[in-house]
Amino acid sequence: MIKTKSLSEAFREAEFRVGEHSKRNVQVLKEAFKDVSGNIESDFYGRGKVIDDFQDQMMKYLGKESAIFFPSGTMAQQIALRIWCDEKKVKKVAYHPLCHLELHEEDGLKKLHHIESILLADKDQLITLADVQTIQEDIACLVLELPQSGIGGQLPDYTELQAISAYCREKGIKLHLDGARLFEILPYYEKTAAEVCSLFDSVYISFYKGIGGIAGAVLAGTKAFTSESKIWKRRYGGDLISLYPYVISSDYYFKLRINKMAQYYEEAKELAKLYNQCPGVKTIPENPVSNMFHVHMNLPEKELEPILVRIYETTGIAFTSYLQQNGSSCSYETNTGDNYAELPKEKLRAAFSQLEKEISKIAL
Amino acid sequence: MIKTKSLSEAFREAEFRVGEHSKRNVQVLKEAFKDVSGNIESDFYGRGKVIDDFQDQMMKYLGKESAIFFPSGTMAQQIALRIWCDEKKVKKVAYHPLCHLELHEEDGLKKLHHIESILLADKDQLITLADVQTIQEDIACLVLELPQSGIGGQLPDYTELQAISAYCREKGIKLHLDGARLFEILPYYEKTAAEVCSLFDSVYISFYKGIGGIAGAVLAGTKAFTSESKIWKRRYGGDLISLYPYVISSDYYFKLRINKMAQYYEEAKELAKLYNQCPGVKTIPENPVSNMFHVHMNLPEKELEPILVRIYETTGIAFTSYLQQNGSSCSYETNTGDNYAELPKEKLRAAFSQLEKEISKIAL
Repeated sequence: MIKTKSLSEAFREAEFRVGEHSKRNVQVLKEAFKDVSGNIESDFYGRGKVIDDFQDQMMKYLGKESAIFFPSGTMAQQIALRIWCDEKKVKKVAYHPLCHLELHEEDGLKKLHHIESILLADKDQLITLADVQTIQEDIACLVLELPQSGIGGQLPDYTELQAISAYCREKGIKLHLDGARLFEILPYYEKTAAEVCSLFDSVYISFYKGIGGIAGAVLAGTKAFTSESKIWKRRYGGDLISLYPYVISSDYYFKLRINKMAQYYEEAKELAKLYNQCPGVKTIPENPVSNMFHVHMNLPEKELEPILVRIYETTGIAFTSYLQQNGSSCSYETNTGDNYAELPKEKLRAAFSQLEKEISKIAL
Repeated sequence: MIKTKSLSEAFREAEFRVGEHSKRNVQVLKEAFKDVSGNIESDFYGRGKVIDDFQDQMMKYLGKESAIFFPSGTMAQQIALRIWCDEKKVKKVAYHPLCHLELHEEDGLKKLHHIESILLADKDQLITLADVQTIQEDIACLVLELPQSGIGGQLPDYTELQAISAYCREKGIKLHLDGARLFEILPYYEKTAAEVCSLFDSVYISFYKGIGGIAGAVLAGTKAFTSESKIWKRRYGGDLISLYPYVISSDYYFKLRINKMAQYYEEAKELAKLYNQCPGVKTIPENPVSNMFHVHMNLPEKELEPILVRIYETTGIAFTSYLQQNGSSCSYETNTGDNYAELPKEKLRAAFSQLEKEISKIAL
């Protein structure tokens, strides 16, 4: 019996990938450094021109008093919450049930800081002002992730966001932005980063999602806040002797892609439409508000996987490397990056046409 | 009045530096990556061939069951101590007063883990077995730094080290090695890294001291220990999506320099002799046991600095970029790396001869 190729194998071997930028390989570093002079001095434990210049650039872009480069968002966000909890002497914060802090950090916030979290909103819904108003206990900080990636990258209306911000200020609750994908939502909101960030007391941004860098994050806020964050960065062992491999590559890819976010957003809407035309397929959100969304297909994994493998092999177009089964249906996250514009459109159409045909045979 | 050049300016402008390898600049990264294929896949949150292979190499080199790559030693060591404290349910450890954990981490161990520390030995002395035997309280772990860099890089006799290890095992105290400069002491001990590490339950090593990489560390021990350390690495935000900029450069410089440690050690002894021939100058230790030592000169900074600046300007040879004044004398740390072999020996002799002459005029 011939073993069928697995989805991840077929994905790996396919000529074209619908999402992402390029592959995550050493070329990403090589490209970022190819025109950088070897004489540029390393940063030195958080100091030096190379890190100062990039931090200044991000500080201005975010419209904050100060910005500090971190190895990771996990580190930056835990530190932000710790600072707000210490300031208010309240070890409690609130965030979404699918928040990175809750799902992907092995309970670092609790284990390292003994900070309790209140989970706001149902896990398939956005946090609303009404949710925030239900909080009975005293909390130091509310975290909002824009877009909420765990539910396909949904966004509240901007007026709702303004209302939550005003409410938090009135109640003495610090508002922290998980802006891992902040750049990606600006075309939808039609706001500058600084305008969005003005609603928040502290902001984290990432350089390896829409920007497509190697790794790295920035935490921004008042000077007092970031000064305190630098002490914690040292405590965490994040104040490396040299962060320039991440700083310089973040700078390179920021400049390369920051003005392409509107293009990615338009492409995401186009791609979501292609999915939504297929029977038994829907995207969440139906109309993307950034470069990302979730795809839900009404088929169990054992039926869907061979269909996708055949599509990848026939057309060379690969949609996803994995499927997550929920009951009798499957879902996956997708996005649009530099790869999307490179796709031969007739092959993309052929892939969707085959998807529609194969699903119709089974599902309907 | 013409302003005299500062020591750091003169150091920066001098043609030759006595210590270190090359300058800490982007060239260090470029050299490490010049022959690395762009097709090599990034590690992905601590997994993948690029990180697995290097961890395996270090595991074997250190003779431990398992080794995990970390962004920094600060992170790796705090985590090691936390694991040992949790295992024994005793939140107390012992280490030297000049330990990195005590001096350079903004009290991370206390602030993040509430672990108390007992400071062993006078700060200008090594920790002895007798010191360890004086500990009355129950402790989870003893940290030994080999060599003790804060006092010029001194080392206990190997038999003393064995005795401390045996005592700790008998008493149920875990022994952790701060091996930031482990590679550098192996020629003096005439032992393999695995032999030294066999005396310890957990070991941290660094890749940007004698090895001269960009940044990065490895923590090694039993599989159970390193599995737990990976969870903590995630909690700390050290489990980056891509650590390959540090992994690949650490691997490159490890291979380049691991067999040069004996050379650096011999050169350090030669350099220390040159210093010790000068009146009012002594090195600690008098005979280095690694590639590092401290230089003490019996002159206050305001008299010594202009002498050094003149030497740098006349000979092109620069000894140090800074001076630390202690009472009426000064000291600094120095070491031997790739730079030392490149020094024109007649210029080095001229520099020391000028040092001797100028100090003699004032000090005697």
